[in-house]
Amino acid sequence: MSKRIAGPEIERLIQLLAKVPGLGPRSARRAALHLIKKKEQLLAPLAGAMADAVDKVRVCSTCGNVDTVDPCMICTDPRRDGATIVVVEDVSDLWALERAAALNARYHVLGGTLSPLDGIGPDQLNIKGLVARVAEGGVSEIILAVNATVEGQTTAHYLTDQLSGFGVKVTRLAHGVPVGGELDYLDEGTLAAALKSRTAF
Amino acid sequence: MSKRIAGPEIERLIQLLAKVPGLGPRSARRAALHLIKKKEQLLAPLAGAMADAVDKVRVCSTCGNVDTVDPCMICTDPRRDGATIVVVEDVSDLWALERAAALNARYHVLGGTLSPLDGIGPDQLNIKGLVARVAEGGVSEIILAVNATVEGQTTAHYLTDQLSGFGVKVTRLAHGVPVGGELDYLDEGTLAAALKSRTAF
Repeated sequence: MSKRIAGPEIERLIQLLAKVPGLGPRSARRAALHLIKKKEQLLAPLAGAMADAVDKVRVCSTCGNVDTVDPCMICTDPRRDGATIVVVEDVSDLWALERAAALNARYHVLGGTLSPLDGIGPDQLNIKGLVARVAEGGVSEIILAVNATVEGQTTAHYLTDQLSGFGVKVTRLAHGVPVGGELDYLDEGTLAAALKSRTAF
Repeated sequence: MSKRIAGPEIERLIQLLAKVPGLGPRSARRAALHLIKKKEQLLAPLAGAMADAVDKVRVCSTCGNVDTVDPCMICTDPRRDGATIVVVEDVSDLWALERAAALNARYHVLGGTLSPLDGIGPDQLNIKGLVARVAEGGVSEIILAVNATVEGQTTAHYLTDQLSGFGVKVTRLAHGVPVGGELDYLDEGTLAAALKSRTAF
């Protein structure tokens, strides 16, 4: 706001909301106003939930997931197959895989990808923890579920190197046509990979 | 999330964030994760700012603006011209006009527009308060800065009726070409209004 038209509390709320991904300065104002109007139904519970998260959320010392317990619920879930570890770049990828509900394994969150230009080397990622988990034994397969980007693939290669010698199978996600995808809109790389890995009908 | 993969606190945070305008279920997950990662820099201050807003923000009993004081800073600002009241539908409109910094008047927030089909009649809006302010005297002009929608214009007509007899000038915003607007993209109504109200060059 150009002039002071409201107490600093409202302006501070708008400024902080504007830093939330998905909200910009304009939508932060709209969000702040909506929250203020729904003070009891939304603003107060949200403030509480955030304070709760500040208090309770921690990073799992085993896998790097976020949870309110350490080790996290996934690491301690006895129904999960501890012999398979799915390596992801970020917690958001872990959540995405869980929504797909396609596996019942444990995870390992790297916290990013190797990116020498940004100063991110192996020591900046949660790689030592992964190697330690594998060295401990009991792991038979590592699924590298990193993004299909240059950085993701570089990281995958590095990890394969690090994990060789432990006798674990290292696999990666299949490339191909997304389910529901239209060929016309796909890039050549994906189409070439889908052709190469074609399966019997 | 399809299965329980984290403590209920994180899921609750995501659910509440998804109710913030501008965020949907997907962006709420992304926002929650970002907030959790920036716990000290963003989540904790935002939780504090929200708790502060819950405690301190109130609706101005004079004009309907939101502020941390009642009457609000605009209503008590001695540098503002109390003889002009700008009537707006919503606090967001008041903020928009303040950003334009085009006037130095007081405001009156209606809290909506007349909409009989939605059960919003004159008693559901802050109209009595406006009439009372005018009846008190000292007001020479009412600027009806309502939206250029059917409901906004209906409300403007109703207000003009209610305010007749007090000897105040009732004006409304000009219609015309938005600054920076391209004629090609404007609707016929706006172009017709801009032509009709053309001014000497």
